[in-house]
Amino acid sequence: MLMSRALANPELISLAAGFVDQSTLPVAETHSALQSLFADVEAACAALQYGTTPGYPPLREMLLQLTLGSPSASDVRRQFDVEHVVVTAGSNQLLHLVLESIANPGDIVLCAAPTYLVVLGTIANLGARSVGVAIDEQGMIPEALEESLRAIERAGELARVRAIYLIPYFDNPCGVTMPLDRAARIVEIARAWSRHHQIYVLADEAYRELRYSGDDIPSVLTLDAGRDTVIAAGTFSKSFSPGIRVGWGVLPDELIAPVCSQKGNIDFGSPNFSQHLMWRVLDSGQFSSHVLAIRAGYRLKLEAMRAAADVHLKSIDGVRWQVPRGGLYLWVELPEGIDAGPNGKLFDAAIAEGVLYVPGQYCFPGEGEPVRCSTMRLSFGVQSSDRIGQGIEALGRAVRRVLG
Amino acid sequence: MLMSRALANPELISLAAGFVDQSTLPVAETHSALQSLFADVEAACAALQYGTTPGYPPLREMLLQLTLGSPSASDVRRQFDVEHVVVTAGSNQLLHLVLESIANPGDIVLCAAPTYLVVLGTIANLGARSVGVAIDEQGMIPEALEESLRAIERAGELARVRAIYLIPYFDNPCGVTMPLDRAARIVEIARAWSRHHQIYVLADEAYRELRYSGDDIPSVLTLDAGRDTVIAAGTFSKSFSPGIRVGWGVLPDELIAPVCSQKGNIDFGSPNFSQHLMWRVLDSGQFSSHVLAIRAGYRLKLEAMRAAADVHLKSIDGVRWQVPRGGLYLWVELPEGIDAGPNGKLFDAAIAEGVLYVPGQYCFPGEGEPVRCSTMRLSFGVQSSDRIGQGIEALGRAVRRVLG
Repeated sequence: MLMSRALANPELISLAAGFVDQSTLPVAETHSALQSLFADVEAACAALQYGTTPGYPPLREMLLQLTLGSPSASDVRRQFDVEHVVVTAGSNQLLHLVLESIANPGDIVLCAAPTYLVVLGTIANLGARSVGVAIDEQGMIPEALEESLRAIERAGELARVRAIYLIPYFDNPCGVTMPLDRAARIVEIARAWSRHHQIYVLADEAYRELRYSGDDIPSVLTLDAGRDTVIAAGTFSKSFSPGIRVGWGVLPDELIAPVCSQKGNIDFGSPNFSQHLMWRVLDSGQFSSHVLAIRAGYRLKLEAMRAAADVHLKSIDGVRWQVPRGGLYLWVELPEGIDAGPNGKLFDAAIAEGVLYVPGQYCFPGEGEPVRCSTMRLSFGVQSSDRIGQGIEALGRAVRRVLG
Repeated sequence: MLMSRALANPELISLAAGFVDQSTLPVAETHSALQSLFADVEAACAALQYGTTPGYPPLREMLLQLTLGSPSASDVRRQFDVEHVVVTAGSNQLLHLVLESIANPGDIVLCAAPTYLVVLGTIANLGARSVGVAIDEQGMIPEALEESLRAIERAGELARVRAIYLIPYFDNPCGVTMPLDRAARIVEIARAWSRHHQIYVLADEAYRELRYSGDDIPSVLTLDAGRDTVIAAGTFSKSFSPGIRVGWGVLPDELIAPVCSQKGNIDFGSPNFSQHLMWRVLDSGQFSSHVLAIRAGYRLKLEAMRAAADVHLKSIDGVRWQVPRGGLYLWVELPEGIDAGPNGKLFDAAIAEGVLYVPGQYCFPGEGEPVRCSTMRLSFGVQSSDRIGQGIEALGRAVRRVLG
């Protein structure tokens, strides 16, 4: 629906799609990694042959390092090895495989409200239920999580709770980052409530590399010395190339076998060729340098969106946002009375003014925290800084028009 | 288990794995397609960006042509368009997606007995049931299929029957090819018995390109002018490269939406990069020339296996096989009394003599036709002609030893 309206007007500035900037795609880096691969006929042959279901071991070793940092940084690093890593078709497939492995119809996954809209679809498709937990400027609130768990327990449904889904870095849709001590509280809560069965913490770290200020925070996985609670999911779709489509998960001991078995049923393992390619990209250092380059580009675009919002939105009473330190999104809250939904006045007014956004209501779980229709997700990933500025200006006009 | 025994003895000649010959992998062809891709920065960018869930349209157009032949060859060709094609991670993912879309727990898929062992696992994992139908030297016997359907109807379970699974070209494990008139009978039967709901014919055409004698036969899809009964699955895993991992399906109208929706849930579409790469391989004509080259190589290996079997197995009473016209497999039937299973004497004797095979019993559906334990599947794909000869000689010694 969004798409058909957008296609109908090619002049429309889409701040909706969460895609990466076409101009930052790593053409030279990929080409160079491929040249190095084909310079070694034996290596090229290996890449063209079948791989294994969990994936190419040297790549998995690097993914572990990418997720956990070097061993000296943390003792927990030593608890995990390559057997805990599975390579998937993007992180979405990892989320699907984990949820399919742990959740039956009627089971519950606790999520921030709002959260990543695709994962809500994955949960619903399994016949499971997403329950929203309140957030603040550091993400899911531990006290609100405990309150949700108590309410679920009172309803006699605690045995239904399978996982707590988090996006610790610059989350989709809010751009919020969770400090490690907050994540530690959430892992503790998951442990404390795992009285009858394991409640997992599923940490979707898709945006971790897209940091534009401040220092990296260790993965939530580093909090799981027991290797029984946390699943960390990563992907190169945002940080390198969505077309190569390599993602991964680092799994607790108990989930390795069921997730690999699901993966074996579904596709026999992700393309070996893409995995050998990504290994070379990492091994050559091209990944790190590419990440530095795209960070610089997105930092400018974020700044363009922030500056335009200051000019065109700040003076409107009741319009609020928190500037993220990374990722691709700005989450905007509008005065309570404004319906930013697809059938509301604002959405039409925005299109009339020439700009498209994602209605925030799509990002709310099916139960728990109420849906807030006066919200929208804006992405600064795809458009140029100029177009971002024009889009925000158009949005300002639309909001003022709706407010009368 | 098979694998651990094989790994414990590196001298063992494995005639078990259905992999392709490492030495035939298309290193030069792939390299050249990649060079052409990276010579065009815009095209390379497009390949590194997100694709769509059903896949890259120009590739899907070519896959349709590959499956159906050129329009002049058949009017049915005009009934299908690119919308009917979905690109998947190998043909296994297509089989999984289709079966997941059409089969609920307890539902029935009719299969040849024996058939592809992985699909039996896929059916079982869905909680569905595989029912075996008798075969002859042209594959599934239409009269036996009708008899099975009548028996299922008498048991009050006709509503459970979802699909008839066929491997029309050089099937796995028997190497049998189904003539088009036989396939037409099976499609007719599927139609005739689709009184209450659609019974699909799922045609797994994975080995079609690996033909070593005779002329190509049109796809079973050409029999489905109504676009309501036949699903055709193809793959480049055997004919080009399993590492690039591109497969596809051509779907009846009613299955396009459910299969694409499943695919969207599972992985958001197969890697765009692999699809752009395969499009170039096809467009440049490198695919056709590669297929001619590997056919020549496999033809020699099949001949080596046939010749060795004539020398070392033919003189043993009750040992029989049918020489296939393509594919990767020779199916050997042994005297009734011999248990070729993993716990039988022959399997141990064969390992002691230095050869590994796939026990035929693994290839039989869970119900219907009885399992025949005195069978084995031999592959001539991986080993050299010399090693194939030695392996068959070792197998001859093992059979004689077990017969006393």
